[in-house]
Amino acid sequence: MTATQKSLLTLLTQPASVAIIGASDDKNKVGGRPVDYLRRFGYPGKIYPINPSRECVQGLPAYASLAQLPETPDMAIIALAGPAVSASIQACAEQGVGVAVIMSSGFAEAGDEGKEAQRRLMETAARAGMRLIGPNSQGTADFHRGTVANFSTMFKQLPPQDGPVAVISQSGATSAALYTLLREQDIGVRYVMATGNEADVTVSELAYAALEDPALKVLVLYMESIKDPEMLIKAAALARERGVPIIAIKAGRSKKGAMAAQSHTGALSGEDDVIDAFLRQHGIWRASDLHEIAQTLPLYLKQAAHIGRKLVVISNSGSSCVMSADLADTLALPLAELSASTQSGVAAALASYATSTNPIDLTATLMSNSALLKDVFDTLKQDDEAQTLLVSLPVAGEGYDLDLMAEHIAAFERESRRMVMVSSTLESILAPFRRLGIVTFKGEPQALRAIDQVTRHHALLQRVPARTQEAPLIILPAGGGTFLSEADSLTALAAAGLPVVSHTVCHTVQDAIAAWKTTGGPVVLKACSDKLPHKSEYGLVFLNLNTEAGIQAAAKQCEETMQAMDIRPGYVVSPMETGRWEMALGARNDPNYGPVVMLSDGGKYIESMPDYCLLMPPFSVEDVRQAIAGLRIAPVFAGARGEPPIAIEPLADMAVRLSNLMLRNEDVIASVDLNPVLLSSDKLVVLDALIERRHGLKPDTQAARQAATALLTD
Amino acid sequence: MTATQKSLLTLLTQPASVAIIGASDDKNKVGGRPVDYLRRFGYPGKIYPINPSRECVQGLPAYASLAQLPETPDMAIIALAGPAVSASIQACAEQGVGVAVIMSSGFAEAGDEGKEAQRRLMETAARAGMRLIGPNSQGTADFHRGTVANFSTMFKQLPPQDGPVAVISQSGATSAALYTLLREQDIGVRYVMATGNEADVTVSELAYAALEDPALKVLVLYMESIKDPEMLIKAAALARERGVPIIAIKAGRSKKGAMAAQSHTGALSGEDDVIDAFLRQHGIWRASDLHEIAQTLPLYLKQAAHIGRKLVVISNSGSSCVMSADLADTLALPLAELSASTQSGVAAALASYATSTNPIDLTATLMSNSALLKDVFDTLKQDDEAQTLLVSLPVAGEGYDLDLMAEHIAAFERESRRMVMVSSTLESILAPFRRLGIVTFKGEPQALRAIDQVTRHHALLQRVPARTQEAPLIILPAGGGTFLSEADSLTALAAAGLPVVSHTVCHTVQDAIAAWKTTGGPVVLKACSDKLPHKSEYGLVFLNLNTEAGIQAAAKQCEETMQAMDIRPGYVVSPMETGRWEMALGARNDPNYGPVVMLSDGGKYIESMPDYCLLMPPFSVEDVRQAIAGLRIAPVFAGARGEPPIAIEPLADMAVRLSNLMLRNEDVIASVDLNPVLLSSDKLVVLDALIERRHGLKPDTQAARQAATALLTD
Repeated sequence: MTATQKSLLTLLTQPASVAIIGASDDKNKVGGRPVDYLRRFGYPGKIYPINPSRECVQGLPAYASLAQLPETPDMAIIALAGPAVSASIQACAEQGVGVAVIMSSGFAEAGDEGKEAQRRLMETAARAGMRLIGPNSQGTADFHRGTVANFSTMFKQLPPQDGPVAVISQSGATSAALYTLLREQDIGVRYVMATGNEADVTVSELAYAALEDPALKVLVLYMESIKDPEMLIKAAALARERGVPIIAIKAGRSKKGAMAAQSHTGALSGEDDVIDAFLRQHGIWRASDLHEIAQTLPLYLKQAAHIGRKLVVISNSGSSCVMSADLADTLALPLAELSASTQSGVAAALASYATSTNPIDLTATLMSNSALLKDVFDTLKQDDEAQTLLVSLPVAGEGYDLDLMAEHIAAFERESRRMVMVSSTLESILAPFRRLGIVTFKGEPQALRAIDQVTRHHALLQRVPARTQEAPLIILPAGGGTFLSEADSLTALAAAGLPVVSHTVCHTVQDAIAAWKTTGGPVVLKACSDKLPHKSEYGLVFLNLNTEAGIQAAAKQCEETMQAMDIRPGYVVSPMETGRWEMALGARNDPNYGPVVMLSDGGKYIESMPDYCLLMPPFSVEDVRQAIAGLRIAPVFAGARGEPPIAIEPLADMAVRLSNLMLRNEDVIASVDLNPVLLSSDKLVVLDALIERRHGLKPDTQAARQAATALLTD
Repeated sequence: MTATQKSLLTLLTQPASVAIIGASDDKNKVGGRPVDYLRRFGYPGKIYPINPSRECVQGLPAYASLAQLPETPDMAIIALAGPAVSASIQACAEQGVGVAVIMSSGFAEAGDEGKEAQRRLMETAARAGMRLIGPNSQGTADFHRGTVANFSTMFKQLPPQDGPVAVISQSGATSAALYTLLREQDIGVRYVMATGNEADVTVSELAYAALEDPALKVLVLYMESIKDPEMLIKAAALARERGVPIIAIKAGRSKKGAMAAQSHTGALSGEDDVIDAFLRQHGIWRASDLHEIAQTLPLYLKQAAHIGRKLVVISNSGSSCVMSADLADTLALPLAELSASTQSGVAAALASYATSTNPIDLTATLMSNSALLKDVFDTLKQDDEAQTLLVSLPVAGEGYDLDLMAEHIAAFERESRRMVMVSSTLESILAPFRRLGIVTFKGEPQALRAIDQVTRHHALLQRVPARTQEAPLIILPAGGGTFLSEADSLTALAAAGLPVVSHTVCHTVQDAIAAWKTTGGPVVLKACSDKLPHKSEYGLVFLNLNTEAGIQAAAKQCEETMQAMDIRPGYVVSPMETGRWEMALGARNDPNYGPVVMLSDGGKYIESMPDYCLLMPPFSVEDVRQAIAGLRIAPVFAGARGEPPIAIEPLADMAVRLSNLMLRNEDVIASVDLNPVLLSSDKLVVLDALIERRHGLKPDTQAARQAATALLTD
């Protein structure tokens, strides 16, 4: 097999040989570190330092150029300064190198010239079938096989140890920081890979590649932009299948952050809400803090036990009980309701002044009786409500038999198949527990946040993915305006099964009066033209008309204003609807992530006092129900102040239909706005709608649709 | 001076002698630890172990009883089991002991019998002028003088060191946990004191006492209930005067938490929002997490430098720049806008592909050039916008000259009188900086949260306290009902200068019609009686009446319903007002903290979708303005969607007047509800009001008020 035929993971972890172009004798230089690390960490293949000005590098014979090597290396590390990079990539491509790890910076992150240089590197590599890591990459590392093609200083600071975790990151510094935090906790890390500018290989692709390795149990990602969402979707699907949770930081949330991202690795950050919805949709937990990731990882790695959300907090400090209960309440983590028999069992085990309800206060008595825990565990074992236990020992040490307690906890875990977490301020107190495989934390807050995250993430992964449903193909009316008229918009939505307000398109006052008479009650009259999407800004929305004179005046004003704007006059007449609550629904095609659907509280202050949720299709009625439960207005749906509830199904169904319409017509529709949608107790109706065409529509897209029935009026 | 004449702080920190009643030879028993600790930590006074069954305890001669001692000890530590405690307290009282530290448990925290026993202890002590710490106390410690009358295991785990911090806590375990977290960071701690059940001495009183010590720079408190708010107010005032910030945990926020608090130290938790307002009012920072307190403390202790909120983030990792910008945005910490000349200065110092905007990305170049920081600092020194600097070094170590960087930072701090924080994952990287007095953090999030807290706390302490203003004395009408009628309520408020809706009290339909005619427009008619506070629940609020028939019908319905309820018929007629926004204002007398004022968004969903703030009087118009800025509806005041703004002053003025009314009439008013208050762009009016009398009003309170003018109708 030639180098370019090998898989990406094989090339990065098991290259038969590695050339270091720009190899340095100084172990603290970028070109010196990989030579040192490959040898130090036991890489079993051939190492070829390339440096025309030296006979030997770090005791290894050096070569003047790639062409001088006895074989074509699977991997080449480029540790040269800017201008020389291009020539060396050219040489690698010519020789048939499998992967080039470019550590050099000064490319896309450094402005237009750099971008162009990077594009050329990529072209050269692609032609030769060579893969690129970087440029501006810290490199990759496999601590299982010692393939550490990386210049991170941190690998010298803490001894590596193979383990079930992979850290894949755009940023080298963040990959190293995560490595450090994990190794400090004695968690084994197999892969540490940094993609830098991602001219070719992305975090998503490496994530997918790493999942080839069956030893992997958790994947941690750091991204500043998601360049290939499709690849990340594939990786997420494979991870879910393999039972490997993915925890990701997508940085660059704020405007300032996004600006910094742009200048950092030439990345353009997408819109943050869409990314939230995207990651959630694919079961990826979005984290924001390296320390939190590191603290939570031991819980992810303890995959054997069942981890439930219903907690029992046990402590020798009443104050830890109180603070834990406070935080559990904030996190909506339920404290298990212990049965009466459990409570009396616990009471029997404890001193008379201790609490037998949950949280369980062991009091300072634990100091003189380390066996106390066992009696409590024996009782809790019988109670299925006690799903997960937190044993908080803010004080312990001399006088406490920690080894005995650890044995009791380990036995409880084994016998009950439940999880116990132990927290304490001191490492010396925690060590005896960790030795028996018990997960430990520096404090109760860390433990509670970790269990909250892991159980929520688990629920995300348990969610049954929704399936895309049929939706009509929309043929856009002729004419190249940006928007569809309100009548056309409503017709398209009605075709997709959305309940829209009944409406009559009129071009004369007589038509309008006739429409009002047919309605038999007050009506709304609105200007209607694809050239006038925001008619209310021109005062061309007239509510509650119920006289001929009123309709005449409204129609006349529409006509005059539209004529003055050189728009063919027209208006829709609809019955004046009443209901209980106004919502807004929207959908748009994100350039990177495709269609998203937004549900929002309605009214005039939508933007000033936002209350909305975003869903990525396909999604189910149940998904919408859960999203709405997180809105501020959720109590209105539940029936606040003794009012009847508002059924969520019709709204959820509308959102699902809208999402399917978007998916089916992604190629022609840019966005849809339904505002307001008027909700009654058990039904709803779209009162106003606006569909925006997708820009840059190709002529053949439209032509391909001619086979389908034209739905829309002209 | 006899023991009982000494100050509390003197007794606890410089007792001439200490007796340990129940002294044990076992250094790991509750009765053994204080004997061991007093000797180990260098207490210079006399130690008298009392144990009738031993000749000597830990090598010291033991005494059979207190009466056998050669002198009366200033302090007695009680380390006996339950029933014996009472007799020993009796003996202490008789001998004239100054303070008894009761470590024994089984008192108020253990039920009614324990409460009664505790009450008796207190009685005995009070009669003799002896102070009590506990019962159920872990004890007190002064590491300056070695007076460690404490049984905490943690003092054995980490070596103590005197310093400028005092930890005063109801809970012994939490005091020990805080001690541990601070000592782990090498922060010196002078006092660690736990008050337990607080039969006598409270956290508040110890806080006040500790402030006698001029060496104290920061005070950390842990409370599950605040038994003596007045004492805490005194302590907070003294602390502010002395420039000592107070950081407090008040635990027991949630219902479960409060329940646990009750069973823990027999404490009853107050209402959480009131506590927030109370602590804020007195400049006390409310924390919730021990680790956050410990992490933030170094910043509090670095008092010399000016600490501003405008940040410059500098890192050798672009990803740290991005993540810091994200978090700064979340915390509303402004990133300093560097001047053009600063930016070009920074650019000149850095490699071409680095960012010169804030955050400043030094890139991996720092590895080969540790002097880079100095050039950046030299430029930033010229820019006053750069108030506080965060230097984040997620990767460093071999190849980096950390000592040089630390020198540059220390020089910058000295010369610019500004603060630099350094963050990194590894202790070995941070140590060289801390050696030069630079504040360090394990990560950027910890640093940013700390600077956010310290600057907000500083602002709280800088606030100019408002002063109580004149308000009329309210004479309640005769009759002992719980509420005042709406007319009386409105009259009282009008007397206090609040703009209330004009209203006419009517008892006949003719009166009502006359009132409508005088108004000259639509009116509101509402039932009015002190016996019918919630008239809308009976359908007795009639809006928008503008015909004789309408008024007749409304009046008739009021009369019929009220007669059926055996209430003297009566109603108020008011003009139908229009405005832009409805708010609700309220005030109530909290049993522990006195009057509080609430401002809330109005409308029918006040409770389902809460949006309110609570203020503790006295407060100023400016205080209200700041509180409103934190409400969800703040954008409406600012003028959302191009609408004119709504002036805040009239509302703030109303809240201030209401607060003064409450302060002046605290003895007779329990609560006031103004709902709705109708806001227009530049004025507002109270449309409905309800005043509740204070329960258990003493007859002489009312009598004392007869000198003032009666304001209210009967």
